[in-house]
Amino acid sequence: MSERRYDAPSGEWRTFATHRQDRLFLPNPAECPLCPTRPGCPPTEIPVPHYDIAVFDNRFPSFTEHPPPPSVPGTALHPVTPTVGASEVVVWSDDHTLTLTDLPLARLARLMDVWAERYAELSAREEVAYVFIFENKGRVVGVTLDHPHGQIYAYPEVPPRSRHALEVARRYMRDHGRCLRCDTGADEAAGNRVVAENEHVIAYVPFAARFPYEVQIQPRRHATTLLDLADHERWALASVLHDVLVDYDNLFGFSLPYVLAMQQAPTDDGDWLEVSHLHIEITPLHRTSTKLKFLAGSELAAGAYINDVMPEDAANALRRARTTALAGPMAR
Amino acid sequence: MSERRYDAPSGEWRTFATHRQDRLFLPNPAECPLCPTRPGCPPTEIPVPHYDIAVFDNRFPSFTEHPPPPSVPGTALHPVTPTVGASEVVVWSDDHTLTLTDLPLARLARLMDVWAERYAELSAREEVAYVFIFENKGRVVGVTLDHPHGQIYAYPEVPPRSRHALEVARRYMRDHGRCLRCDTGADEAAGNRVVAENEHVIAYVPFAARFPYEVQIQPRRHATTLLDLADHERWALASVLHDVLVDYDNLFGFSLPYVLAMQQAPTDDGDWLEVSHLHIEITPLHRTSTKLKFLAGSELAAGAYINDVMPEDAANALRRARTTALAGPMAR
Repeated sequence: MSERRYDAPSGEWRTFATHRQDRLFLPNPAECPLCPTRPGCPPTEIPVPHYDIAVFDNRFPSFTEHPPPPSVPGTALHPVTPTVGASEVVVWSDDHTLTLTDLPLARLARLMDVWAERYAELSAREEVAYVFIFENKGRVVGVTLDHPHGQIYAYPEVPPRSRHALEVARRYMRDHGRCLRCDTGADEAAGNRVVAENEHVIAYVPFAARFPYEVQIQPRRHATTLLDLADHERWALASVLHDVLVDYDNLFGFSLPYVLAMQQAPTDDGDWLEVSHLHIEITPLHRTSTKLKFLAGSELAAGAYINDVMPEDAANALRRARTTALAGPMAR
Repeated sequence: MSERRYDAPSGEWRTFATHRQDRLFLPNPAECPLCPTRPGCPPTEIPVPHYDIAVFDNRFPSFTEHPPPPSVPGTALHPVTPTVGASEVVVWSDDHTLTLTDLPLARLARLMDVWAERYAELSAREEVAYVFIFENKGRVVGVTLDHPHGQIYAYPEVPPRSRHALEVARRYMRDHGRCLRCDTGADEAAGNRVVAENEHVIAYVPFAARFPYEVQIQPRRHATTLLDLADHERWALASVLHDVLVDYDNLFGFSLPYVLAMQQAPTDDGDWLEVSHLHIEITPLHRTSTKLKFLAGSELAAGAYINDVMPEDAANALRRARTTALAGPMAR
């Protein structure tokens, strides 16, 4: 069964996909479906012996182009719709053990191009309202396949958190006549929470971060999607992303798990362009190298985040990790 | 350092409390600060040899009555305020191993009275806008003390998720002239997702649950807080809560971790009473007895929940667990 149900008390749509309960769960490396197909072996999801970047439909999708009809009719109070959209897997290396941090800059820039191509193709579909590119990295984040990979969801509506941020930005535009994230980006650039930067792109721990080592990355100028970025700007974005990922692994001393998400302009008819400012949010769950920030009562039920680490301290630690790495044994 | 910072891009306040980084982390049972003080031993947090229910200020608070001044001045874009409010601990048994499920019904009803008393006292404070009663149960939810206990946060504003639900309810009231949760409660009562019920109270897996085994409990009639409930209604609420907790443990075969949260009317001057309908949300993280529902990219960054279990199936399984328990080896 696969359907979208409207939760009246929250005003949010939720997606049900019971086949996902049976998805592959941490298979042995020898049975990894994201590794290339080896000669003489049964085919994996990727029927070639080598690849750089592979994109394909998720075998256990949350959204599909031709979803089944819902299991219940729905009512005025409780509407139901099909799970129309797309669920794609993006694998950026045929090496089972490699992470995004390890990618050469040219490959990371190529990944930006692939993401842009997928945004262009999926956003052209009539039924798609929001193209959401993300990576869940590491078992503490809940990955069910160890082979590093990203995902793309094409939602049939702007999802709740992204929509809320856009509505906040629209109010700010109405009140101040400027893009909110242009203003917060300029403010962060002048502040003491910058982690990495170049001419075109800035990465910072936000002034009021939700998570201890959260980092946001955005173009300095107003760009709504990856398609807005010229080649050298995509390269600049890849470069700053690379620096942040290296900082993470250096600071923690292991390959740091995180949720990475890219927020771009919706593709419905909501006229969002002037308030949509492309950015990447990276959310590690660790608050120390051995302790996680759990979402519990205050966060899950009240939506109120409590953070034990000052953003200035987190940014400072991440910057220091870069310097140490350049001179020390963890240098790449 | 302890302060509240406004996150402009989300329009949300977040709380920073660096002393919490050093809070006690899973101490040995012999050093449990929530156990009663034993004769001849150093005092715990509770300086008596026996107790039924104890309430006291959290030693590592997120909010306090007299918070320190913020570390930074704040700007128009980035306002900062003190962490004024309250953080209390509520321990309902001096037995280190007992859980809420194990409480005799009379003690559970007494706990409702204590929660009501705390709501009354904290809500009377000028600076308190929202009294939030919750329990984080189990290490997978991130508890740092194993001794079962609940908490109360008194926030200086209505927290984001609670506020959002109230705004949705206010729009519904404007459009339909009725309390949204009165309507969804009546709809759930007539549906096939009821888990437990009596004359005054109903418990159900919501039509569009966020989490696989989420249960919500509410009075059938419009009641805004525990203070609205007569003694027999509090007893009825305790009784249904007890049934749901027994179902959980019977179905999973172990003491099921969860986040339990009570949503009641705000205590700011927002005139929320006609759209505030008291309810308890219980959110277990398990999707099977061995697998958790992790919040990852879609939930954390897009706010879009994907659920692998149909609410009707979850409700049915929980109901069956009650019957089995009455006849079987796990009966209490």
